[in-house]
Amino acid sequence: MREQFCIDAMNQERPVYTVSDGSGLTAETVAHTLLTQFPGVEFRHVSLPFVNTHDKLEQAVNDICRAGQESGVQPLVFTTFVQDDFSERLQHISAEVFNLFEPFINRIERALDQHSSHKSGQAHGIANVGKYNRRINAINYALHCDDGLHTRDYDQATVILLGVSRSGKTPTSLYLAMHFGFYAANYPLTEDDFDRRMLPSDVVANKERVFGLTIDPVRLQQIRSERRPNSRYASLSQCQEDVRLARELFDRNNIPFCDSTGYSVEELGSQIKHQMALQSELI
Amino acid sequence: MREQFCIDAMNQERPVYTVSDGSGLTAETVAHTLLTQFPGVEFRHVSLPFVNTHDKLEQAVNDICRAGQESGVQPLVFTTFVQDDFSERLQHISAEVFNLFEPFINRIERALDQHSSHKSGQAHGIANVGKYNRRINAINYALHCDDGLHTRDYDQATVILLGVSRSGKTPTSLYLAMHFGFYAANYPLTEDDFDRRMLPSDVVANKERVFGLTIDPVRLQQIRSERRPNSRYASLSQCQEDVRLARELFDRNNIPFCDSTGYSVEELGSQIKHQMALQSELI
Repeated sequence: MREQFCIDAMNQERPVYTVSDGSGLTAETVAHTLLTQFPGVEFRHVSLPFVNTHDKLEQAVNDICRAGQESGVQPLVFTTFVQDDFSERLQHISAEVFNLFEPFINRIERALDQHSSHKSGQAHGIANVGKYNRRINAINYALHCDDGLHTRDYDQATVILLGVSRSGKTPTSLYLAMHFGFYAANYPLTEDDFDRRMLPSDVVANKERVFGLTIDPVRLQQIRSERRPNSRYASLSQCQEDVRLARELFDRNNIPFCDSTGYSVEELGSQIKHQMALQSELI
Repeated sequence: MREQFCIDAMNQERPVYTVSDGSGLTAETVAHTLLTQFPGVEFRHVSLPFVNTHDKLEQAVNDICRAGQESGVQPLVFTTFVQDDFSERLQHISAEVFNLFEPFINRIERALDQHSSHKSGQAHGIANVGKYNRRINAINYALHCDDGLHTRDYDQATVILLGVSRSGKTPTSLYLAMHFGFYAANYPLTEDDFDRRMLPSDVVANKERVFGLTIDPVRLQQIRSERRPNSRYASLSQCQEDVRLARELFDRNNIPFCDSTGYSVEELGSQIKHQMALQSELI
């Protein structure tokens, strides 16, 4: 019976709870990052945000304990509570509980010689209206200047992404706007640009803010084939030619660039910010 | 002289470094969250991502030590290194160093009875191609179905946001797509809908996935005034009327909703996910 229990337990996914009094984003980010260090384990994530009353806390405790009983393994629980009584309550349940702030906050208090505010929901809220507006305006700008639209407004850009069709420009622009508050435009390089062997005047006039994206032609072929299967546009030869000509344009104009192949939008965004030495507008 | 040094030090912004071998996003998120607990202190954030060689590590150490000397206060350093020698190197510099993984990883290893992989850059990279494509497709869907476009494709939606013009639908839809991989459409409620006193058939046909956004009329007036100053559209009476009629439509159709006023897109996104009981497509 005991052995049966253990085998069952091993087949179960490990329940993982993130419990927060705010949006839960910090807890989710850290839990996700820590658990990617255990690629062999299957996890079942449950997010419990906005646990900001004692009633909701008891409900969360019930959910966690039930998941532990049903799976036969102790749930992992990640919290970012800054209220001591909330944090304390979770210490007495049958689960592995990690308060993600607790090991650091006292050390930071000592280093700064300041008490922490113990106010919850500060991290992902609206820190101030100016930064909030900056971000919304940046998103609107990215949409306004997506895919070569409104190049006359490039003088407002923080960064102008250049690349062939489907090299990842639009998602990266939107990410740069949302995450850093950058005014990110993007311009698709087409046969017209390659034939002229030069960039449009609005791009040239803002060249110090231009960044190129390149991509592996085989990956590009896959992406384009999803959009227009069996087209000339999606053929490997066309993809190879487009990527080669784009690289030539980057080299000829001394445009910094990176290869988007195999990178997430977060990685590309961080890479562009880093290579262009930009500072976030939102912190 | 000593006193002078202290006064100068107090006037300085406290240098904060996030040092990571990957994109640095986890370190930045946690550092930001922890430091919002100290609202009275001015920080100067420097992000050092992609520190993945010993040369780059020494460069980072130099930067941090110089900042400490120049400011006269010890920098705070947040890292997410999983390589022990990188982590170890930072323990011997003149700074307050916080390894954000270190207090947890051994406890998780014991709880799971597994060794961690100690591989870096796992958190924000492309975990698998399926999830990567899901996300890119979700972003494309959000753009495709932005602002009432292509309502015939609402049957593919994870969630359809409804609200009056400038209530925050577009940024929230893009966030839901980027962060959770949701197919998030959005539909603007206009006088046509209010006059008809009913919702478009494509919305009604997918009513169980509809979520409303409402907003404080005074805040709406401010936002609309930035776009079209002194217009009827931006007048307080029009904003009050639009918001009232939208609320009536939500109530009449039993549409869940929340008030976007004073919330960040992260908070709205988490709230919508929570209220609609949705699970992220990306973890």
